[in-house]
Amino acid sequence: MHVDDLPTPALIVDLDVLDANIATMARRWSGARLRPHVKAFKSTALARRLADAGHQGFCCATLREMEGMAAAGLGHDLLLANEVLDARRLGVLVERGARVTVAVDSVETIDAAADGGVREVLVDVNVGLPRCGCPPDQAGILAERARGRGLEVRGVMGYEGHLVGLEDRAAREQGVAESMASLTAAHQAVGGDVVSGGGTGTWDLNRSITELQAGSYLLMDTAYGHLGLPFGPALSLAGTVISVNQSGGYAVADVGLKSLGMDHGDPTVVEPAGAKLWFCSDEHLTFSVRDAAVRVGDRVRVHPGHVDPTVAYHERYQVVRGRQVVDTWPVDLRNW
Amino acid sequence: MHVDDLPTPALIVDLDVLDANIATMARRWSGARLRPHVKAFKSTALARRLADAGHQGFCCATLREMEGMAAAGLGHDLLLANEVLDARRLGVLVERGARVTVAVDSVETIDAAADGGVREVLVDVNVGLPRCGCPPDQAGILAERARGRGLEVRGVMGYEGHLVGLEDRAAREQGVAESMASLTAAHQAVGGDVVSGGGTGTWDLNRSITELQAGSYLLMDTAYGHLGLPFGPALSLAGTVISVNQSGGYAVADVGLKSLGMDHGDPTVVEPAGAKLWFCSDEHLTFSVRDAAVRVGDRVRVHPGHVDPTVAYHERYQVVRGRQVVDTWPVDLRNW
Repeated sequence: MHVDDLPTPALIVDLDVLDANIATMARRWSGARLRPHVKAFKSTALARRLADAGHQGFCCATLREMEGMAAAGLGHDLLLANEVLDARRLGVLVERGARVTVAVDSVETIDAAADGGVREVLVDVNVGLPRCGCPPDQAGILAERARGRGLEVRGVMGYEGHLVGLEDRAAREQGVAESMASLTAAHQAVGGDVVSGGGTGTWDLNRSITELQAGSYLLMDTAYGHLGLPFGPALSLAGTVISVNQSGGYAVADVGLKSLGMDHGDPTVVEPAGAKLWFCSDEHLTFSVRDAAVRVGDRVRVHPGHVDPTVAYHERYQVVRGRQVVDTWPVDLRNW
Repeated sequence: MHVDDLPTPALIVDLDVLDANIATMARRWSGARLRPHVKAFKSTALARRLADAGHQGFCCATLREMEGMAAAGLGHDLLLANEVLDARRLGVLVERGARVTVAVDSVETIDAAADGGVREVLVDVNVGLPRCGCPPDQAGILAERARGRGLEVRGVMGYEGHLVGLEDRAAREQGVAESMASLTAAHQAVGGDVVSGGGTGTWDLNRSITELQAGSYLLMDTAYGHLGLPFGPALSLAGTVISVNQSGGYAVADVGLKSLGMDHGDPTVVEPAGAKLWFCSDEHLTFSVRDAAVRVGDRVRVHPGHVDPTVAYHERYQVVRGRQVVDTWPVDLRNW
């Protein structure tokens, strides 16, 4: 099928760009040194492509992602890089043969893991982002607590999420060095083999971790696109022009904010060339057509501002090479 | 089940508030005078509650909503209040016995409707919002075209979406009068029995239409909550505190921007009282805890900024009376 024959809105993955992104990342972070973050793409089909490229361990953000990955036979080494109290759902996966590690940053989450039947944990260390993670000086105490509860402490994780989007590369690099110094200190107190951290925005700046957690690099978005990274935009939305207002100088396509994560702002219209976005509504995108003749039925293509919440709105990817649809991948790891 | 025993994040509907909203609206717009907009809630279970309250006709924004409503036996009088070229999917519903009307605003959409097997249309008139709808002075010409293609023209529709959110009630009222004057003029040229328009924000200001298209009033959100309307917040998200940083003065709950439409901005934390939102991440909400003792495992409750794209992220509603979960309604009209 030709991409222009797809019903719209359609979530499109350019397979050549995706494969190039996978290869670029794998040259620096090969095999188990990369722990791709499933939250960015929520698809076991895409995860399997990464496993085939040598990355057998994965990161998840939700219990549903963990369950779906395990059910798909991708449970070789799953990390829930997030705190959870309902850890019994993870214990079930362990019983079924998956290797499950969960982040812990408190007595409560350690107890939940132990009580739920999880066997392995990472101590999640706050390295500057005001979110989860214990203060670095408490990491050793929590590791002791975890071992006291019979848990294997594999090491530490720390996510420098306050830095990954900094446009100034030098500032990003300096921040990462400081954050990772604090993670390294915590690691010395905790022990274990794993120091897990990083993301797409710090993929070549974070040098003290043993494994990189990155997901956005695969599909990319316009927010990361501003950083000059060597990863191309593999994700776009295809829409159809459903209305043209010649006197008003605008047209309307059927790509709306219910198909786009909007927290990073508006998407960018890349087709037709020269189109300028006016605004998004629930199911519509209004854009200027002053510089181009646009007709009802024409196709449009937009790049999302933020990959993760965009993907979470869709039930499938349409996978293309050039303009041909070559596969369909379910977005099968949605919801919680 | 008690609401605090639900896995989180959970999308909660307060049934008493919902029923009060249904009753308040029905006092002014009873029976077929209200055409509830399915896009705001995407659930046939909630639609059936409206049908039981006397509203048998519905508005949809997507083909999937139309198909789902028809399949659920709610196809008594379905309006796709949106332009579509792939109208064959609607023709299938007509063949299966549903009454289907579609908005048209161009020769192309009229031809698509006729070719697809749709029998009834409304001429969609632009009344000021830069989105779909023909210029008012072309409505009569399009109606002729539609009749020439064998279509029954039921009348006109026009959505004053540029006005529904205006905080100044007098300005809203004045704008509605102007928009509806233009819709009335178009109606005179088009003919038919139906003048469809309006929304939650103009529910008591729009006096020239024969039927009101409103959906947000049912569940509400903080954007509409600022307008002083007599509809209460029936929708909230329940989360769990998964991390507390005492020295930082903040806590983290498992309600993130993948469970919240963010185009109208951040949600509002309503429980614990006094909590102040710092920011949302994909799966997290960081909030201040300076004025309250918050512990890991505590529950939080937030009100979304925008109901429609919030609901579209979820697979089910948990329906509560007080603190008891009394039902679960699938959000079964998602996707396209």
